[in-house]
Amino acid sequence: MEKKEIQKNIKYLVEKVRRENPMAGSLTNTVTINLVANAQIAVGGSAAMAYLPDEMGELAVTGGSAYINVGTLFPFLKDTFEKLMESFYKNKSPWVLDPVAIGVGELRTELLKSFKKYKPSIIKGNASEIMALASLWELEENESKVRGVDSTDSVESARQAALALAKYIGGACLVTGESDLITDGKVIVRNQGGSHFMGKITGSGCALGGVCAIYLTSADPFTASLTASQIFKLAGKRAGERVVGPGSFQVAFLDELYLASGQDVADNEFSLEEV
Amino acid sequence: MEKKEIQKNIKYLVEKVRRENPMAGSLTNTVTINLVANAQIAVGGSAAMAYLPDEMGELAVTGGSAYINVGTLFPFLKDTFEKLMESFYKNKSPWVLDPVAIGVGELRTELLKSFKKYKPSIIKGNASEIMALASLWELEENESKVRGVDSTDSVESARQAALALAKYIGGACLVTGESDLITDGKVIVRNQGGSHFMGKITGSGCALGGVCAIYLTSADPFTASLTASQIFKLAGKRAGERVVGPGSFQVAFLDELYLASGQDVADNEFSLEEV
Amino acid sequence: MEKKEIQKNIKYLVEKVRRENPMAGSLTNTVTINLVANAQIAVGGSAAMAYLPDEMGELAVTGGSAYINVGTLFPFLKDTFEKLMESFYKNKSPWVLDPVAIGVGELRTELLKSFKKYKPSIIKGNASEIMALASLWELEENESKVRGVDSTDSVESARQAALALAKYIGGACLVTGESDLITDGKVIVRNQGGSHFMGKITGSGCALGGVCAIYLTSADPFTASLTASQIFKLAGKRAGERVVGPGSFQVAFLDELYLASGQDVADNEFSLEEV
Repeated sequence: MEKKEIQKNIKYLVEKVRRENPMAGSLTNTVTINLVANAQIAVGGSAAMAYLPDEMGELAVTGGSAYINVGTLFPFLKDTFEKLMESFYKNKSPWVLDPVAIGVGELRTELLKSFKKYKPSIIKGNASEIMALASLWELEENESKVRGVDSTDSVESARQAALALAKYIGGACLVTGESDLITDGKVIVRNQGGSHFMGKITGSGCALGGVCAIYLTSADPFTASLTASQIFKLAGKRAGERVVGPGSFQVAFLDELYLASGQDVADNEFSLEEV
Repeated sequence: MEKKEIQKNIKYLVEKVRRENPMAGSLTNTVTINLVANAQIAVGGSAAMAYLPDEMGELAVTGGSAYINVGTLFPFLKDTFEKLMESFYKNKSPWVLDPVAIGVGELRTELLKSFKKYKPSIIKGNASEIMALASLWELEENESKVRGVDSTDSVESARQAALALAKYIGGACLVTGESDLITDGKVIVRNQGGSHFMGKITGSGCALGGVCAIYLTSADPFTASLTASQIFKLAGKRAGERVVGPGSFQVAFLDELYLASGQDVADNEFSLEEV
Repeated sequence: MEKKEIQKNIKYLVEKVRRENPMAGSLTNTVTINLVANAQIAVGGSAAMAYLPDEMGELAVTGGSAYINVGTLFPFLKDTFEKLMESFYKNKSPWVLDPVAIGVGELRTELLKSFKKYKPSIIKGNASEIMALASLWELEENESKVRGVDSTDSVESARQAALALAKYIGGACLVTGESDLITDGKVIVRNQGGSHFMGKITGSGCALGGVCAIYLTSADPFTASLTASQIFKLAGKRAGERVVGPGSFQVAFLDELYLASGQDVADNEFSLEEV
């Protein structure tokens, strides 16, 4: 795959989603659920959130994909996830996994273990989360250092874990950081942009996962996660250049997600490495 | 009823609420709950949210009304709604129903069916939701096309459904769209204004429902829902004219809700049709 | 304790938190959870939210403290709180109690009563809430007038209740209002600043409680709650001076929380009274 072809795919996907307004269902935490929805809408998608298994199943089928974020778990979600995974499996629904706060609490660990056999199409996380998930799924040994919802590892230290996860699921893995790392197990993309303010607001990572799900309605996992990463790096850079604090950053960031053209997203700087 | 009299009622209500700061209780989805509260406060009301039946019952009595949005259902809300409806009925509490995502999932359908006998004072929804509710309540036959939380029907196609619902409940029905349609079963109001950005953020519809409940503490259902619609059309128009994206729109919209005077809200363009 | 020493402690704490990025766990309502997290991050902390007892217990230990807000209760939180309080007690975890909406509903009353023996390190509330809690805990007789989540009492009328609570818990009590009142039972601080817009958005009180928990990771209860109050009064004042409405206030407020220097926070005007 050449860089030009990848850029063509990105441009096409950004424009297609703006034109067709596809819907993705999301089951996500209560902290950043509003930002996830607003980011999904800003890139041209339609947002629909639910906590019940039949609702999420319907949304994933009516729309084209689902975003699953295990952030703020409720006790009853154990039941939801069991039924939901069966529904995703039966209907071959593509879905995005965001293993936020992996390692904290028993239910989260149990759920994340159980997800292994249902193979998400895209896994998105910070370096510590990606390393911890590869380790939990026994795909790769490492010692990740998650602290709450924060990463304390570098993106490059998650390279092997990301490759292992992408190969195992037959999809794509997106590791967020100063440069994001996106891989389908065969090539690795690293891109530039963003802003330090993305770490000064809550939910830029969740919003990215939600936007991955929107793009996944209309493209393969690698193109979908790369396009999501690119539009975030571009919008983050543009927003960060014209604000002084995290409050105005969030506002400007949603504006820039909305304004970014397919060409600009495709042209956001990235490098390509064959594995 | 003449247009001048309606305008006088609108102006009076906007000013009364700014002066008296009435409270409404809300049981609403986790996606847009913050925007609902902020919109209620911006027009001069006080917001109080709850999920438990006795709490909501108390808030509806202490305040003057309640906003019920069936957006992101939890399993335990089945029990809450049963007790809550009995409490509303017993205390004659006026309430606003927002049948968001009608048709998605079993629990939502069951709940919305059961609400028929408890007759809300105001029903607010997009065209597809209003048509689907009239059909679910067997008041009017039609084929609505809800998709997730989006409408795919025109406001005018929901005219008969809105009339049927308003007559049945003996209150008012508000159909949102490019023009809103508000009816008490006897007259129909259609108004102008708003912004395309209202569909580019999540929650402008929910916030409208919440503001209906604030006005319902201090006026009849028709005046309350019309005033809410008018202030949204006015604030939406003003905000939309000075922003470039959905992030800054949401900020400007809350500012304009706060700044709108009773006279300006009454003067926002609308037409009146006797049925 | 002299004013100069207090100011030195405030400056040191603001800078320490910006440098060390401490984490606090929060269990808080769904209405303002996003603002709580963003405020905690804006002052330099790390936010992590949960609803399950083992998760909150872990976060309180991994981080250095916890923020407990009883705003929008779920039925299953009864179980969470029982286990959580035992965990806080066992691990000597410092925590902040925000008795929002005290008096509304049976579960909230039962929970708040049960918290008495687990003694939070900081209690933060508006005047009506502080008076109602002192009365519920039988520390002081009074007739508070809570309405939903609003206060209808003056800060000064909560003076005795605040002193009684601070002495009982051996920590600090923070009463919010036009001037905040902060006491450890021995001295009382009253400070200036803020903006009328803080009452025109939802969640400025919750965000303050969350920021108390961040500072509590790194200081004693009195210094932590005073520093939180000071940075809110300063950021509120600065933000309020340059906006026209509540939407832009919230944005500017987060920016100003982020931008405030330790010296500026220490210099925000306050008076000191020996009890």
